[in-house]
Amino acid sequence: MLKSSKRYPDVEDGMYRARFSKPLKPDVAKFVSSVEEDARIFEADVLGSIAHVKMLGERGYIPEREARSIIVALADILRDFKRGKVRLSPEHEDVHELVEALLVKRVGLKVGGKMHMGRSRNDQVALDLRIFARREIVEVCRLINKLQRTLLELAGRHVDTIIPLYTHTQQAQVGSLGHYLLYCRDMLRRDLDRLLDCYRRVNESPLGACAVGGTSFKLDRVRTAKLLGFDGLVENSIDAVSSRDFAVECIANLAILMANLSRMAEDLILWSSQEFGYIEIADEYASPSSVMPQKKNPCSLELIRARSGKVYGSLLRLLTLLKGIPMGYNRDLQESKPPLWESFDVAKSSLAVMDGVYATLRVNADSFAKGCEKGFLTALDLAEVIVRETGISFREAHAIVGKLVKSKSESGKTFRDVTAEELTKMVEEVSGKVVDGFCLKAALDPYKALRSRASRGSPSPAETMRMVRQRKRELRKYSRRIEALERREREVEEKLTQGCF
Amino acid sequence: MLKSSKRYPDVEDGMYRARFSKPLKPDVAKFVSSVEEDARIFEADVLGSIAHVKMLGERGYIPEREARSIIVALADILRDFKRGKVRLSPEHEDVHELVEALLVKRVGLKVGGKMHMGRSRNDQVALDLRIFARREIVEVCRLINKLQRTLLELAGRHVDTIIPLYTHTQQAQVGSLGHYLLYCRDMLRRDLDRLLDCYRRVNESPLGACAVGGTSFKLDRVRTAKLLGFDGLVENSIDAVSSRDFAVECIANLAILMANLSRMAEDLILWSSQEFGYIEIADEYASPSSVMPQKKNPCSLELIRARSGKVYGSLLRLLTLLKGIPMGYNRDLQESKPPLWESFDVAKSSLAVMDGVYATLRVNADSFAKGCEKGFLTALDLAEVIVRETGISFREAHAIVGKLVKSKSESGKTFRDVTAEELTKMVEEVSGKVVDGFCLKAALDPYKALRSRASRGSPSPAETMRMVRQRKRELRKYSRRIEALERREREVEEKLTQGCF
Amino acid sequence: MLKSSKRYPDVEDGMYRARFSKPLKPDVAKFVSSVEEDARIFEADVLGSIAHVKMLGERGYIPEREARSIIVALADILRDFKRGKVRLSPEHEDVHELVEALLVKRVGLKVGGKMHMGRSRNDQVALDLRIFARREIVEVCRLINKLQRTLLELAGRHVDTIIPLYTHTQQAQVGSLGHYLLYCRDMLRRDLDRLLDCYRRVNESPLGACAVGGTSFKLDRVRTAKLLGFDGLVENSIDAVSSRDFAVECIANLAILMANLSRMAEDLILWSSQEFGYIEIADEYASPSSVMPQKKNPCSLELIRARSGKVYGSLLRLLTLLKGIPMGYNRDLQESKPPLWESFDVAKSSLAVMDGVYATLRVNADSFAKGCEKGFLTALDLAEVIVRETGISFREAHAIVGKLVKSKSESGKTFRDVTAEELTKMVEEVSGKVVDGFCLKAALDPYKALRSRASRGSPSPAETMRMVRQRKRELRKYSRRIEALERREREVEEKLTQGCF
Amino acid sequence: MLKSSKRYPDVEDGMYRARFSKPLKPDVAKFVSSVEEDARIFEADVLGSIAHVKMLGERGYIPEREARSIIVALADILRDFKRGKVRLSPEHEDVHELVEALLVKRVGLKVGGKMHMGRSRNDQVALDLRIFARREIVEVCRLINKLQRTLLELAGRHVDTIIPLYTHTQQAQVGSLGHYLLYCRDMLRRDLDRLLDCYRRVNESPLGACAVGGTSFKLDRVRTAKLLGFDGLVENSIDAVSSRDFAVECIANLAILMANLSRMAEDLILWSSQEFGYIEIADEYASPSSVMPQKKNPCSLELIRARSGKVYGSLLRLLTLLKGIPMGYNRDLQESKPPLWESFDVAKSSLAVMDGVYATLRVNADSFAKGCEKGFLTALDLAEVIVRETGISFREAHAIVGKLVKSKSESGKTFRDVTAEELTKMVEEVSGKVVDGFCLKAALDPYKALRSRASRGSPSPAETMRMVRQRKRELRKYSRRIEALERREREVEEKLTQGCF
Repeated sequence: MLKSSKRYPDVEDGMYRARFSKPLKPDVAKFVSSVEEDARIFEADVLGSIAHVKMLGERGYIPEREARSIIVALADILRDFKRGKVRLSPEHEDVHELVEALLVKRVGLKVGGKMHMGRSRNDQVALDLRIFARREIVEVCRLINKLQRTLLELAGRHVDTIIPLYTHTQQAQVGSLGHYLLYCRDMLRRDLDRLLDCYRRVNESPLGACAVGGTSFKLDRVRTAKLLGFDGLVENSIDAVSSRDFAVECIANLAILMANLSRMAEDLILWSSQEFGYIEIADEYASPSSVMPQKKNPCSLELIRARSGKVYGSLLRLLTLLKGIPMGYNRDLQESKPPLWESFDVAKSSLAVMDGVYATLRVNADSFAKGCEKGFLTALDLAEVIVRETGISFREAHAIVGKLVKSKSESGKTFRDVTAEELTKMVEEVSGKVVDGFCLKAALDPYKALRSRASRGSPSPAETMRMVRQRKRELRKYSRRIEALERREREVEEKLTQGCF
Repeated sequence: MLKSSKRYPDVEDGMYRARFSKPLKPDVAKFVSSVEEDARIFEADVLGSIAHVKMLGERGYIPEREARSIIVALADILRDFKRGKVRLSPEHEDVHELVEALLVKRVGLKVGGKMHMGRSRNDQVALDLRIFARREIVEVCRLINKLQRTLLELAGRHVDTIIPLYTHTQQAQVGSLGHYLLYCRDMLRRDLDRLLDCYRRVNESPLGACAVGGTSFKLDRVRTAKLLGFDGLVENSIDAVSSRDFAVECIANLAILMANLSRMAEDLILWSSQEFGYIEIADEYASPSSVMPQKKNPCSLELIRARSGKVYGSLLRLLTLLKGIPMGYNRDLQESKPPLWESFDVAKSSLAVMDGVYATLRVNADSFAKGCEKGFLTALDLAEVIVRETGISFREAHAIVGKLVKSKSESGKTFRDVTAEELTKMVEEVSGKVVDGFCLKAALDPYKALRSRASRGSPSPAETMRMVRQRKRELRKYSRRIEALERREREVEEKLTQGCF
Repeated sequence: MLKSSKRYPDVEDGMYRARFSKPLKPDVAKFVSSVEEDARIFEADVLGSIAHVKMLGERGYIPEREARSIIVALADILRDFKRGKVRLSPEHEDVHELVEALLVKRVGLKVGGKMHMGRSRNDQVALDLRIFARREIVEVCRLINKLQRTLLELAGRHVDTIIPLYTHTQQAQVGSLGHYLLYCRDMLRRDLDRLLDCYRRVNESPLGACAVGGTSFKLDRVRTAKLLGFDGLVENSIDAVSSRDFAVECIANLAILMANLSRMAEDLILWSSQEFGYIEIADEYASPSSVMPQKKNPCSLELIRARSGKVYGSLLRLLTLLKGIPMGYNRDLQESKPPLWESFDVAKSSLAVMDGVYATLRVNADSFAKGCEKGFLTALDLAEVIVRETGISFREAHAIVGKLVKSKSESGKTFRDVTAEELTKMVEEVSGKVVDGFCLKAALDPYKALRSRASRGSPSPAETMRMVRQRKRELRKYSRRIEALERREREVEEKLTQGCF
Repeated sequence: MLKSSKRYPDVEDGMYRARFSKPLKPDVAKFVSSVEEDARIFEADVLGSIAHVKMLGERGYIPEREARSIIVALADILRDFKRGKVRLSPEHEDVHELVEALLVKRVGLKVGGKMHMGRSRNDQVALDLRIFARREIVEVCRLINKLQRTLLELAGRHVDTIIPLYTHTQQAQVGSLGHYLLYCRDMLRRDLDRLLDCYRRVNESPLGACAVGGTSFKLDRVRTAKLLGFDGLVENSIDAVSSRDFAVECIANLAILMANLSRMAEDLILWSSQEFGYIEIADEYASPSSVMPQKKNPCSLELIRARSGKVYGSLLRLLTLLKGIPMGYNRDLQESKPPLWESFDVAKSSLAVMDGVYATLRVNADSFAKGCEKGFLTALDLAEVIVRETGISFREAHAIVGKLVKSKSESGKTFRDVTAEELTKMVEEVSGKVVDGFCLKAALDPYKALRSRASRGSPSPAETMRMVRQRKRELRKYSRRIEALERREREVEEKLTQGCF
C-alpha cells in the first residue's frame, strides 16, 4: 500500500487512503500491520471473498461474468499462496488489503474494485477468525480423541496393576493404574464437550455486517453463510464486527485443557523421579544433560506443564484487550489473533506429545506394587471392615485405626507387621466386640482391598473394566461426530475453490 | 476442633487427629481454615449430608431410626445456621468438620459418627461447590434475562433515535440507539447460553467417590444424585475429587460476561462526558465530588468496568493453583472457593446495577442527532449510492468520496455544505456518468441513510423492530427455562430439609 | 451520607451531593462504597488530615484555635476507631467522607467544614494508600528477615548433611542441605531488596495535589510530607492523583516473593512424600484426613503454593483496571485497594507459616544419605576426575561416563557396584591412558564428591560455611535498616496524634 | 544433534545422549527445541563461552594454545551468525548445543570438547538471559528518555494552552497541556527508575555454577564476571541456575510501563474523537477504513493500548510457569525466554511509536479552549475564592457553588451566563457577608483560574515552566547514565570478540 501509487496508477495514494496526505512511516507500518500473522487466515479470507462475490453475482450487484472472473482469480491467488508464491510484507496493513490488491492486479480496478461492495475489513476479519477457529477446534477435538484412545487401550491392560493413589502428594488409598488412566480420560472428555459447545457459537457468520451499521445493498447473508458452512448468523451488525467473546471462549477452553494436561504431566514427572521410580519415559521423549551423563530428563512433560502458562497468558492478553474498549471494531481487536493462533498451537502439539509419551510409556508394575507397601495405604479399608464387623460408628473406627497407624509408624513398622491377634485385641478394647482378626488382617492386603471397593466409579478391577468398555463405545460416537465436521470443512473448501456451487 | 477434647470427651484430640501428637497452632489454624468462607456452602453441605444419610439408611448401613434422628438434627442445624446461631471460627478446619461436630454434639458420637461412612471431605467439598455453583449460575442467568428485558424495552422505544456508530472511537456510520441496544442484548444472550451449557457440566454429583479411591460400602450414588437434583455423576472417583474444571469454566464465562459489561459501561461513560453529552446517568447511580461542586461522576459504571479485572484475576488465580498439581485432592483446591464466590458476586451486582442504570437512563436524542452532523457519517452511504447509480466499482466510489471528505474537512465544512450540483459534477469527472445530484444529496441525510440500510441485522428501523420482536419471544423461552431450574432447586431443598423424600 | 440530612440539618442532602436531586439507591450505595475495605486506611486517613490541618493552621488558612480543635477531635476519632467504636457502613461512600462527617458531628460544620480546603478525596486516597503500603512493606521485610534467620540457623547446622540436588525433578548432583537452604535465603534476599527499592517510590507524598489540577491556596506540600514521614513529593498534581504504579510495583514484588515461596513449598511437599521420605513436617503444621487415619497432609505448604495464585490474580486485577483508563482519578482506582490489602496479607501470613515450618522441621539425614545412593549422582564428579587425570576433553569424558551409567542401570546396578579395576579399564579403552582406579572410585563417594567441589558458591562444606557467616553479617545490616523504618513510622504516628509537632 | 553421528563419528549418537538408545522423534525435537527462539541469545552465548574458555586457559585447565584456537573459532562462528550463515533448526535442542557442535566441527572434539568443562547449559542459559536482558533494559531506557525529551519540548511550548482536566472522564478543572505532558513524563521517569533498579539485579553472573551443585574445577567466577561486564555474582550455585526472578522483574516493570502508555494512548484517542476534537494524529500514524472514506483511525495508539495486554500476558505466563516448580533447572524455564523477548519488543516499539505520535501531533488549542467552557470547570476555583473572601468553611462554599451549578445546568446555562450581582447575592444569602461580585466572577474565567493555582505541582504557567526546566536538567543526567551503560556493553563485546583481554 505504501507504494501503491506504482501499482494502481488510477487510484493515487493507495486503495483506502484517498483522504490522507501521507503514507504510514515504514516503522509504523510494521507496528500496525498484521499481514505476517495473517498467513493463518489467508485461505479463510479468500474463501469468504469467493462466497461474497458469488452472492453479489446472484443478487445482480456484479454482472455474472465479472463475478466469475473474480472468483477464478481468487482461487488462483489461493493456489499461489499455498505454493508459497505470495509475499506477506508489512507494506500491506493486513491480509484483506493484500488480497484485494492482488485481485486488482489480475482483473483490474474496474472489476476487482467491486469485490468490496457491501463489505468491510471489519466483518471480513471476524469471518476469517471464525473459520480459522472452527477448523482448529475440530483438529484439537481429533487429537483429544486420539489421546483418549491411547489412554483407554492402556487402561484396559492395567485394571489389575495396583498403584498408590494420592491426596496432598501423600499416599492415600490403593488404586489401579487403569482406573487412574480413566480419570485422565474423563477430564479430557469434558474438554472435548466444552469445545464442541463452543463450536456452535463460533460457527455463525458475521459476513454482511459491513463496517458496523450494515449496508444499503440487499445482501443475502443467509446465502453466504451456507456457502461457507456456517450454522447461523451473528445477526446484529455491531455485534458481528465488535465481538470476540467466541475467541475468548476458545482460549478459555484450551486453558482448562492445558491445566488438565499440566496435572497429567506432573504425575508422570513425579512417577519418573528416582524416588518414585514407577515409570520410565521413552528415550524419544526425554533429553540428556550436557554435563551430567546419568540424566534422563522428562523435558517434553515439563514443557507441557510450563506451556499451560502460555495459554493462560494468551487468555489474559485477550481479556485485557477487550476490557473497556468501546463498541465497533477497534484496532485493539487485531491483537486477538496471535493469542488465538498460539493457544491452538500449544494445545495441539501438547496433545500429540502427551499421546506419544503414553503410547511409549514403560510401566514398572513391581515398583508400583512395592510402593503400595510403604505407607499405611489400606487404613481406610481396615476402618470400613471394623465398622461392618462391629457396628460401631465410622468416626470411632477411624480413631482406632489412627492410633494403630501412630503406634506402628513410631516404631518404624508397616501394616505387614500387624498380626491378626493384635487387630482382634485392639478392636475389642474399644468396641467391646470380638471380631475375626484374620478378616481384619485381610483388609490390609492391597490386592484384596482393591477388589473390595464396591462403589460406582471406584478402582475395583470389575468396575474399572466396565468403565473402559463404556468409554470405548462413547469414543466411537465422538469420532463419528468429529469426522463429520472435518468432512464438511473439506466440502466447503472444494466447492468454493472449484466454483461448483 | 482445637478444643474438641472438651466437647467430645470420648474422642481425645479431635475427631480426625487421632494419630497426631499436637494440635494446629492458632495462627496456622487460621492460615489453613476455610471455615469462614465456607458460610456460602453451609447449606449445600447439610443437604448433601442429609441425602447421604438417607441413602445409607435405605441401604441398611445405618438403622432406620438412627438415620432419621441424624436427618432431623441436620435440618435443625441448618435452621440454626440460617438464624445466625452457628459460629464459624477457625478452630474448625472447615464446614464439614464443623457440621459433623455440631451433629455429634446433638446425637452423640455413636450415632453421629456414622454419618461420615463411605464419604470424605474430598467428595463432600466437591459436592458443595457444585450445588453452590449451579444455584449461582441460575441466579446470574435470571439477572442477565432481567437486563435483556430492560434493553429490549428501551430498544423498542428507540428504533428511530439516530446515533453515530463508532469504530476506533471515530464516527463511522449512522445507526440507531435501538439497534445499539440489541447489540448489547445479543452479547448477553451468548453469555446466558454459555452459562447454561456450563450448568450441565456443573450439575453432576461427585458424592460417593469417598477420599479418592472409592469405598467398600455399596453406596447408591445414583440415589443421592437424584435426591440432590443432579442430572448425572462424575463417575471416576479420582476425577470426582480432583477436578475443578467446572469451576474454571464458571469463572471463565463470568469473565467474558464482565468483559462485555465493561464495554457497555465504556460506551455509557463516553456518552455521558461533557464532550459527547448524549446521555445522562440518573442521580441514583452517580456520585459527586468532595471538592468540585459541578461533578456528576458515573461511578457505578466505572466500577463495573474496573471489576472485570476482579473476575479476570479470579480466573487467573484458579488456573494458577490448578497448574501442575498432582492427582487427588490437594489442599491447594481449597483456594478455588473464594475466586468462585467473588466472581459470582461481582457478576450479579454488576448486572443488577447495569440494569438500574439503563432503566433510569436519560437519553438526549437531540444531542445524538446533532452528533450525527459533526463527522462525515454518511460517506459510505454516499459511496454506495454512487455505485448503484453509476455502476463504477466500489473501490472507485470509495476514492471519490474520500476526496470529497478531504476537501470539505480541510476547509472546515461538513456534508451539510455540499450541494447537489457539486456531487453531480464530482461523480461525472471521475466516472463520466451524469447522475441526479439530489439523489446523491439525499444519501447524506442521516435519517434517510438509516432507512436505506437493507441488510439483515442492520439498524434500519424496520429491521430493528423485527429483531426486537423476535428477541422478546426468545426472552420468554429463556425465562421459562430459568424458572424451571429455580423451581427444582427449591424442591430439592424442601424435600431434604422436611424429610419428605 | 444517605441520611445525612438528619445529621447535618444545615447542609441538605449530604455534604457532597448539593447539586443532586436524589441520593444513591441502597444497593448502589453498597456497590460503590468502599467504606468497609477502608478500615485498613482509617488511621492513615486521620493522620493525613491532622497533618493537612496543622499546615493550614500554620499558613493562616484556619485560625490556630480552630485548627487545634480539629486536630484534637481527629485524634479522638482515631482512638474511637481503634476501640471499635466507629461503624463502617455503606451509607458512606468511603472513609474520607465518614471521617469528615464524624468531625463535623463533633466540632460543627463551620469549623469542621474547613478541613477539606485545598484537598480532595483524590489526593487523600492516594496518600492513604501510600502510608498503608509503606507500613506493609516494612512488615513484610521484617518477616522475610525472620525467615532468613531461621534458614541461616538451620543451614549452619546442615553444612555436612548430604542431599540429592535435582534438575528436572531428576537426581543431578550431591549437595548439602545447608547449601540448599542458602539458595532459599538468597532468593528471599532479592525479594527484600526489591521491596526496599519499591519503598522509595511508595514513600512520596501526593497530598496537596487537590482534585487533579492543584488549588489556589498556597499549601506547603513539603511541610505535610515531612510531618507524615515522606521522603519526597509526587509533584505533578495529575500524576499525584492518577498514578497507581507504586501499587502495581508492590504487588508485582509480592508475586515474585510468592513464586519463590511456592517453589520452596514444592520441594518440602515432595520431600515429605512417602517415596522421598526425607523430612517430616511438624504436627502443628499438618492436617489429618477425615477418612484416612494414616494421613498427615502438608496443608500449610500446599496453601502457600496455592496462594501464589491469589497474588498473581491480584496483580492481574490491578493491571487490568489500569489499562486504558484516562487521566485523573477514575472510580476504577477504588478497586486498587483490595488487591493491595490481600497481597500483603497473603505474603505476611505465608512468610510466617513458612518460618514456622522450617523452625519445626524434622530432617531425616539418613534418608537423605540413602537417597544419594539411588541414582548416579556422582557421574559428573567422575567425569571431572577423568578429565583431570587423563587430559581428555570434558565432552569425551562425559560420553565415557554416560556409557558406564547406561550399562549399570540396564543391569539394575548402582555406582556402589563399580570396581576400581572396571574404571581403570574403561578409561584406558577410550583415552589410552592408565589412571588409578581407586582415585576414580573415590570420586563416586558422595561425601568425597561434596568436599571436592571447588567453585565459589558450591555446596562444599567449607564454602557453605563461609557463605552462612557472610550472610549472617548481612542479615544484621538489614535488621538495622528495617528497625529504623519501623521507628520512624511510630514517631510519625505519635507526633501527629499527640499534637507534639 | 539427531544426525550427529555423521558429524562426530567418534561420539556415537550425539554429544549429550551417550546413555540413550534412541534419538528424539522429529516432532518431539520440534516440541522441545528452543533453538529458533535462541537466535536472540546467540551472541550472548558465544561471548559467555569466550570468557569461560579464556578463564579456563588462565587457570591452566586448557593449554593456552588450545584456548586461543577455541576463542578464535567462537569469534568466527559469531561473525558467521551475524552474516546469517548459521542455520538454527530444531535438530539442535538449543543454541548451546548448536554452538558447541559448530565449534567441534571447526577445532575437533579433542579441543572443542574442552569448552564445556566446569559448565552446564543450566548456568549458560541463565548467563545468556541476563546479558540479553541487561542490553534490552538499556535500550528501553534510551527510548523512554527519548520520549521524555519529546514530551518536555512540547510541554515547554504549551504552558499556556488551557485544557479541561478530567476525573471520571468528566471535566474537572482547568489545566494546561504543558502540565498534562509533565504528568506523562513523570510517570515515565519512574518507569526508568524501576528499570535501572532492576538492572542491578539482572547484572550478576551465574557462570560457574555448573549444573546445579558447582564443580570440582577451581573456576575463577569473578574473572569471567568481569570479562563479561557483570557487577557481581549470583553466588549460590542452585540459585544461579534455578532463579528467574530477574526475568519476572523485567517483565513486571515493562507491564507497568505499558499500563502507563495505554493510559496516555487512551487520552489521545479520546481527544481525537469527533466529539472531543482537541487534537489530530498525523497521517503517518493513522489508518484509513477500507469502506468508510471519511475515517482516520488512530490505529497506532489503539495498538499501544491493546499491547499492554501482550505484556500482561507474558508476565502471567512467566509467573505461572515458575509457580510450584522444584529447585534446579527444570525444562519449564525454557519457556521464560519468549515472554522476555516479546515484552521487550512490545515496549520498545510502543515507545518509539508514541514518541512519533507526539512529535507530529497537531494540537487544536482553540478547541481545547472552547472545551473549557462547556462544563462548569471553574466551580472549585469559585468555591475557593468564596472561602477566602468570606471566611466560611470550604464545605459550605462547596454547597453554595453546587447549588449554583445545579440551577444553571437545569436551565441549560453555563458560567458565562452568571453575573457578578448574582454571585454577590448568592454568597450573601448563605454567609451573610457582602463580597465583590466581580472578584468572584473573575474566578470563573479559565485563564485567570489557571494562573491563580498556587500549589506546588499545579498547572499554573509559572509552576509548569519551573517543572519543565528542572526535568530537562534531570533528563541530561539520565542520558549520561544510559550512555555509560551502552558504552560498557560495546566494550565487553569488542574485547571478547577481538581477543584483546
